Amino acid sequence: MRNIKLTIEYDGKRYHGWQRLKDSEKTIQGKIEYVLSEMTEEKIEIIGSGRTDAGAHARGQVANFKTESNMSRQKMMDYLNYYLPNDVVVNKIEEVQERFHSRYNCSGKQYSYYVWNTEVPSVFKGQHSFHVQEKLDIDKINEACQKLVGEHDFLGFSSLKKSKKSTVRTIKELSMEQEGNMLRFIFVGDGFLYNMVRIIMGTLLEIGLGELPVELIDEIFEDRIRENAGETVPSYGLFLDEVYYN
Amino acid sequence: MRNIKLTIEYDGKRYHGWQRLKDSEKTIQGKIEYVLSEMTEEKIEIIGSGRTDAGAHARGQVANFKTESNMSRQKMMDYLNYYLPNDVVVNKIEEVQERFHSRYNCSGKQYSYYVWNTEVPSVFKGQHSFHVQEKLDIDKINEACQKLVGEHDFLGFSSLKKSKKSTVRTIKELSMEQEGNMLRFIFVGDGFLYNMVRIIMGTLLEIGLGELPVELIDEIFEDRIRENAGETVPSYGLFLDEVYYN
Repeated sequence: MRNIKLTIEYDGKRYHGWQRLKDSEKTIQGKIEYVLSEMTEEKIEIIGSGRTDAGAHARGQVANFKTESNMSRQKMMDYLNYYLPNDVVVNKIEEVQERFHSRYNCSGKQYSYYVWNTEVPSVFKGQHSFHVQEKLDIDKINEACQKLVGEHDFLGFSSLKKSKKSTVRTIKELSMEQEGNMLRFIFVGDGFLYNMVRIIMGTLLEIGLGELPVELIDEIFEDRIRENAGETVPSYGLFLDEVYYN
Repeated sequence: MRNIKLTIEYDGKRYHGWQRLKDSEKTIQGKIEYVLSEMTEEKIEIIGSGRTDAGAHARGQVANFKTESNMSRQKMMDYLNYYLPNDVVVNKIEEVQERFHSRYNCSGKQYSYYVWNTEVPSVFKGQHSFHVQEKLDIDKINEACQKLVGEHDFLGFSSLKKSKKSTVRTIKELSMEQEGNMLRFIFVGDGFLYNMVRIIMGTLLEIGLGELPVELIDEIFEDRIRENAGETVPSYGLFLDEVYYN
């Protein structure tokens, strides 16, 4: 039995997220499983590194699947990219050890969130970034980013009602790069709770607009009350860049 | 009577090009005229610097219109960007002399054409670039670019059957920039014939693939036979970057 690891790029605009639902047409996982099953003539189920939200994108989502097929990796790649829709591309295929599991073995992830920060909207960047017209206080945002780095209980920055499992996560890096009017926020961490990046982003933006104080971050770590944090920003500015394995 | 100059950015994907047709819904000009007419309560006709093809994009198309309205430029900008669809944005509004004419006064243009040159397609860049999987001979392409620069009769590189007007044009610059797998071809000239950029691009790519010899360029300048040049590449890789006025 071969274990095949896929690295996948997709534009999430047309999809109800990664995870397969009943209507397999509308999810990334469903699309890929359908094409793989046709290709191998087996019923293929793929294991993703984790879900991505409806409308969110990926440059380096990882998934794996088991197959008896002896098709070469190059042929698989050609087949997949020929039959997958244009907004889903497999850009790497590796053969991995039988016990490799995309979700259990994942040691961390990098996400980016893009903010287009100027009065006039952008035709070409508007579909993959969140438009904020008002000027942001970059110093305050950077100060807030520093407070978020490290090991914290992020329950208050998630859409989880409550959790039996630990909601402590470590953000190893949270930095902002500016290129013209585009701000790119880069999140590197060992794991992210449901909606965590989007709620942190909403909080950072409200701090940058002067609507929330920087100190609020510490309070939310203590109180763990999601309602005190900022709005959840839209999914179309969010990219899963990379999934790490040790 | 005020004369207003607009600088316009658009994604041409959903449109039948710049120029207004009977069904005004499906052209950029038609869309903008409709919103301007609502805004001023006058019947506005705009004069573009020139047409762009169905599916082609613009970062800096220029158009002007006359109006009796005394609305401020800022209010016009807000109104237009609120009512125009997301894929058309006005990013500059200037008040110009009454005799300014976007087409007659135009002294040159810059276009870019994007080629994604690697085996695997790109999800995010695929909608705005032409995908060429085979490796291109960059030296040969640069050699061909140099032959095209200067004053020449470009009839053989256009879709014009014949022309009573002169088909001599000057390409001031034709350069190629490479960023990772993306090749950007920049064309600066005093004017471009119908389909000239797309036919030159098709010819350059066939030269880069070794299917056509570099010397063909000189022959087409002499014979002026369009059939000897390369294919017309798709419009979705083409951007009108800037329109020049003296």
